[in-house]
Amino acid sequence: MAGLDALDPVAERMKADLTELATIRAPDSGGWTRTVFSEPYRSSRDWVRARMRNAGLDVHTDGAGNVIGVLAGRDPSAPALMTGSHTDTVESGGRFDGVVGVIGALEVVRLLRENDLRLERDLLVVDFLGEETNDFGLSCLGSRALAGGLTRDHFDRIDLEGVQLGRRYAEFGLDPSAVLAAADSFAPNGLFRYVELHIEQGPVLEEHGTAIGVVTAIAGIRRLVANFVGRADHAGTTPMTVRRDALVAAAAAVLAVRQEGCGAPVHGVATSSRLDAEPGSPNVVPARVRLFAEMRSIDVGWLSDAQRRLAEQIAERAGEFGVDADLSWSVDNDCVPAHADVQQTVASVADALGMSWEAIPSGATHDAVHIARLCPMGMIFVPSREGRSHCPEEWTDLDDITAGVRVHAGTLVALDRSA
Amino acid sequence: MAGLDALDPVAERMKADLTELATIRAPDSGGWTRTVFSEPYRSSRDWVRARMRNAGLDVHTDGAGNVIGVLAGRDPSAPALMTGSHTDTVESGGRFDGVVGVIGALEVVRLLRENDLRLERDLLVVDFLGEETNDFGLSCLGSRALAGGLTRDHFDRIDLEGVQLGRRYAEFGLDPSAVLAAADSFAPNGLFRYVELHIEQGPVLEEHGTAIGVVTAIAGIRRLVANFVGRADHAGTTPMTVRRDALVAAAAAVLAVRQEGCGAPVHGVATSSRLDAEPGSPNVVPARVRLFAEMRSIDVGWLSDAQRRLAEQIAERAGEFGVDADLSWSVDNDCVPAHADVQQTVASVADALGMSWEAIPSGATHDAVHIARLCPMGMIFVPSREGRSHCPEEWTDLDDITAGVRVHAGTLVALDRSA
Repeated sequence: MAGLDALDPVAERMKADLTELATIRAPDSGGWTRTVFSEPYRSSRDWVRARMRNAGLDVHTDGAGNVIGVLAGRDPSAPALMTGSHTDTVESGGRFDGVVGVIGALEVVRLLRENDLRLERDLLVVDFLGEETNDFGLSCLGSRALAGGLTRDHFDRIDLEGVQLGRRYAEFGLDPSAVLAAADSFAPNGLFRYVELHIEQGPVLEEHGTAIGVVTAIAGIRRLVANFVGRADHAGTTPMTVRRDALVAAAAAVLAVRQEGCGAPVHGVATSSRLDAEPGSPNVVPARVRLFAEMRSIDVGWLSDAQRRLAEQIAERAGEFGVDADLSWSVDNDCVPAHADVQQTVASVADALGMSWEAIPSGATHDAVHIARLCPMGMIFVPSREGRSHCPEEWTDLDDITAGVRVHAGTLVALDRSA
Repeated sequence: MAGLDALDPVAERMKADLTELATIRAPDSGGWTRTVFSEPYRSSRDWVRARMRNAGLDVHTDGAGNVIGVLAGRDPSAPALMTGSHTDTVESGGRFDGVVGVIGALEVVRLLRENDLRLERDLLVVDFLGEETNDFGLSCLGSRALAGGLTRDHFDRIDLEGVQLGRRYAEFGLDPSAVLAAADSFAPNGLFRYVELHIEQGPVLEEHGTAIGVVTAIAGIRRLVANFVGRADHAGTTPMTVRRDALVAAAAAVLAVRQEGCGAPVHGVATSSRLDAEPGSPNVVPARVRLFAEMRSIDVGWLSDAQRRLAEQIAERAGEFGVDADLSWSVDNDCVPAHADVQQTVASVADALGMSWEAIPSGATHDAVHIARLCPMGMIFVPSREGRSHCPEEWTDLDDITAGVRVHAGTLVALDRSA
């Protein structure tokens, strides 16, 4: 694979980008906070536009609110290559989730231009709108819209301040009708491949001492909202034997969720994240509890079986405590496999560069889930220190990022030539 | 015991009182709501004062805010008999908790006067201030103050609106200094006996078909605030084996609390009432959980042993999940036995009236807990339908209340003569 050695990222340049972007954050929140539609996020996107132009890209914002920089290829009629990630964060998040993919793509473009390495295809570098889950319960706003997964109904959803999603778009300078139309007007010649560089957000690569994760699939997510209804009784006067304690039933469910996750034979996690007990008075047996949980896996069979088993167990244990359990399941996203060609290309490039790599599932959702509906996709992971993510402690060494960008650059070049 | 048959409560008169008092309640709350310091509570106390005067009592409000009606006895120098209960309610409570003891005492006074049955001792009928637990974490404000259990520090506590207890007293027309002084100025000749009529708030009497509960003791209460500290990790990317999930540890604690309560050999209950998990985001492993629980028993040995066992179990299970557990215990009140003489008098009166009775512990706290520091006390329970209490479904049949008032009247007369 000729020319790969030349595509050697400039660590200091990337460090400067990471440092500069990290200064843009909500002043009153902990860690790094640039939630979608916020002022810091507006600023970070302006910064991205400027850096894209500086790297020589032709920049525009599409109808869905994605910031897109185009590096024109030799053949304007060929389906384009796409890469990117996001610069929004969760509340009190870190400096690397999403950012590494955007800044990494900028560095790839700079390296291509500096080495006069012109691609056959257009390369689209995208800073997707609002990848993180928001108060509207919708992650990946920008990529979801491109894949036609956003509908007019979604605009009626309200956030914690009671404001509709449609109004948030408008206040951010985006026309809701244009958001819906973005899917149709996007990429007239189609897309060829999508590749995203991202931090692992888990501990596996660091533990194994592996430089590069070749993502095999992005896990499917099943979400559970379980409502337990027992009876409010005086906590001092009601014998244990006649109680219908909704919190006890919910506690048994929390342990069952964990147990199910621990039993996944291939890959799977199960998490209870929140539990609201009412009335919550110190001298009243809890009558109503709402429990929020989720399961994720790239093992589609296990996911379905685990959901069925868990539903049975939760209802059975609740019944033992005289409590009714009403379970509402939803599919956040189905499991999406990375395309075999892209996986093989990433692995080959890593091998050619003498870097260690391993196949790894992604437990987190990414914009790639949605873009997979438009073209074959793949992802490249770099290690996260202690697996921490979505918190201020999130960290990836600059050397690890640089290694990821080398593989990323090589992968894009190889895919461009593979047509 | 001469004269007992003559003390036959007038059911219609009591029904009218119950119905009238039930009209006084917060309009925007469910069930019956007259929380301490609220406007409906102010009105209900005015109503009590009027009914006391109508029954022939000499009415005043003491420094601690208790409404007291005095029926003068033949010997003004003798230590007085005291009875009463409370007219405040929990949020969305019922019509009988406390009210039965106040209206029952009014009926006793009316019967005594109608039958020209003058007591030797003064009889004090008390509507105690704020018996129910409030936002300040203090139940039994009025009786607590009389027993010297309220201190200047308590006035600095703030409620959910950030208002200090001292200011709430002042806004309610009560001078905080007078509240503290009430213990000293109260009952110059001392108290002889305290007897309180109350609904059981549990299911035992109804289940057994027993008319009268002779309270043996009021349960001691140990309260637990358990703080679990794990680690916030991405719920999709963090393998089950490396998690430190605070919610899982707390769920195990909820089940351990219940298990401990179920194992009480004599009498005991254990309840987890509330659980707050942070950060609460659907894709983050809970890092911090605060759990509120309590144990109650009249078996002091079990209460201490159960606390020790539970502390060990909770810490051990949390440790298995990699979670730190910090447990803070407090004694809400120690177990307070009812005086043997009062218990025997209540039982004898019930026997003489041909009523069924049984000895029963009180799992709920009452003003009698505090008055027990001033004089021997006892309590009379009447059945609660299905054991429901602190809810709109709370119910006691008028016949059952009337039976209780007959025993209550007989007990006061017998105690007055027993000196």
